[in-house]
Amino acid sequence: MISIVIVGKGNVATHLYHAFFKVDAFIVTQINSRTLENIPKADITIIAVSDDVIAEVSSKIKNDFVVHTSGSVAMNSLKNKQRKGVFYMLQTFSKDKIVDFSKVPFCLEAENKQDYQLLEKLANSIGKKIYSINSMQRKKLHVAAVFVNNFTNHLYKIGNDICKKNNISFDILKPLIQETALKIEQLSPEKAQTGPAIRNDKRTIKNHLNLLDKNQQKIYKILTKSIQNEN
Amino acid sequence: MISIVIVGKGNVATHLYHAFFKVDAFIVTQINSRTLENIPKADITIIAVSDDVIAEVSSKIKNDFVVHTSGSVAMNSLKNKQRKGVFYMLQTFSKDKIVDFSKVPFCLEAENKQDYQLLEKLANSIGKKIYSINSMQRKKLHVAAVFVNNFTNHLYKIGNDICKKNNISFDILKPLIQETALKIEQLSPEKAQTGPAIRNDKRTIKNHLNLLDKNQQKIYKILTKSIQNEN
Repeated sequence: MISIVIVGKGNVATHLYHAFFKVDAFIVTQINSRTLENIPKADITIIAVSDDVIAEVSSKIKNDFVVHTSGSVAMNSLKNKQRKGVFYMLQTFSKDKIVDFSKVPFCLEAENKQDYQLLEKLANSIGKKIYSINSMQRKKLHVAAVFVNNFTNHLYKIGNDICKKNNISFDILKPLIQETALKIEQLSPEKAQTGPAIRNDKRTIKNHLNLLDKNQQKIYKILTKSIQNEN
Repeated sequence: MISIVIVGKGNVATHLYHAFFKVDAFIVTQINSRTLENIPKADITIIAVSDDVIAEVSSKIKNDFVVHTSGSVAMNSLKNKQRKGVFYMLQTFSKDKIVDFSKVPFCLEAENKQDYQLLEKLANSIGKKIYSINSMQRKKLHVAAVFVNNFTNHLYKIGNDICKKNNISFDILKPLIQETALKIEQLSPEKAQTGPAIRNDKRTIKNHLNLLDKNQQKIYKILTKSIQNEN
């Protein structure tokens, strides 16, 4: 039997709790980060709280092995006295949506091999995609995620803005959006690149710029330059 | 019976030919744009050639109703003497990949109602998503597509670059990329926006900028500003 305590009541904590609960070899308890006085002993304590309270919460935990679940906090930001680790799942968790853990990438880090293997065991019991990622790599991964998630979504918004302004249904663009995302499952983004920028089609680029507002023009120019590698 | 001639031997022309060929009510012929002397008479002639030769090819066609399939060429760029129209499918066509026409948005334009209805009949016989889009709207749609396809793919490339440089598998980001695209099927991009920019989390933004090269920093800053609406 492996005993697990999950600290936190948010989406990550709750989804993890339900997933571990189904595994026969685990005994899992979920506690609120405000009731740390009564924390049970456990083989592993998983802190799933917001980034800015991880240090404080961890400083109050006396259990042997404590990990957090954050993408942007270093392992040594944990302030417990004993062993440390990270159990980071790179995926957005929504409250009401069932999580398919078989598709979630688990990014694991620990101070020693034995602890790493325990994290691996936990991840393997509910998921399939497991990666060893140290704190520096995790930081980089987090900023890469901003590009492919936050910034990509903003480009969708610009597409939507252009449609709205011209009485065009945004639905027309949705199949293209899905295909663009699916394409990189087979092809590297470098090979998947198409469009006027990579063709250096100056006439189309000029025509496009004339159709855009000032802010859109700035973004169009800088991304076109970046595609053309004129840094 | 409706008779159709398709001019061109590229991906769009060939996929369309095969799709129309299966419809009992159509007689369809595909011809090379270099053999326009022998063009058969037809109810509709579809020019599916590259943008810069549409005017020239159309000028040589004597058939009554001529349409092109381009996203970025105006209807009146057609130089045939009689009626004109546009039969534009907003999707990328690859040579070896089967096209699911039921998911392809058809953007149609014609000079009169009867011709428009013929285009609609053609589109309905192989597809489901049909939109009336005039030449100005189609231009705007084309530039919107550059944002959600070409530029989005470039953001994937930046994500991949960051991963490569730090010995991280790009596979870790792929589920997030798929989810980001799927999210806007349910939620507007405006409502789907997350991340440090929209939260105005200055500390994370500063940390991220320190991890990037000059070109990535420029893109990060301009997209962050745009998300924060500081145009």
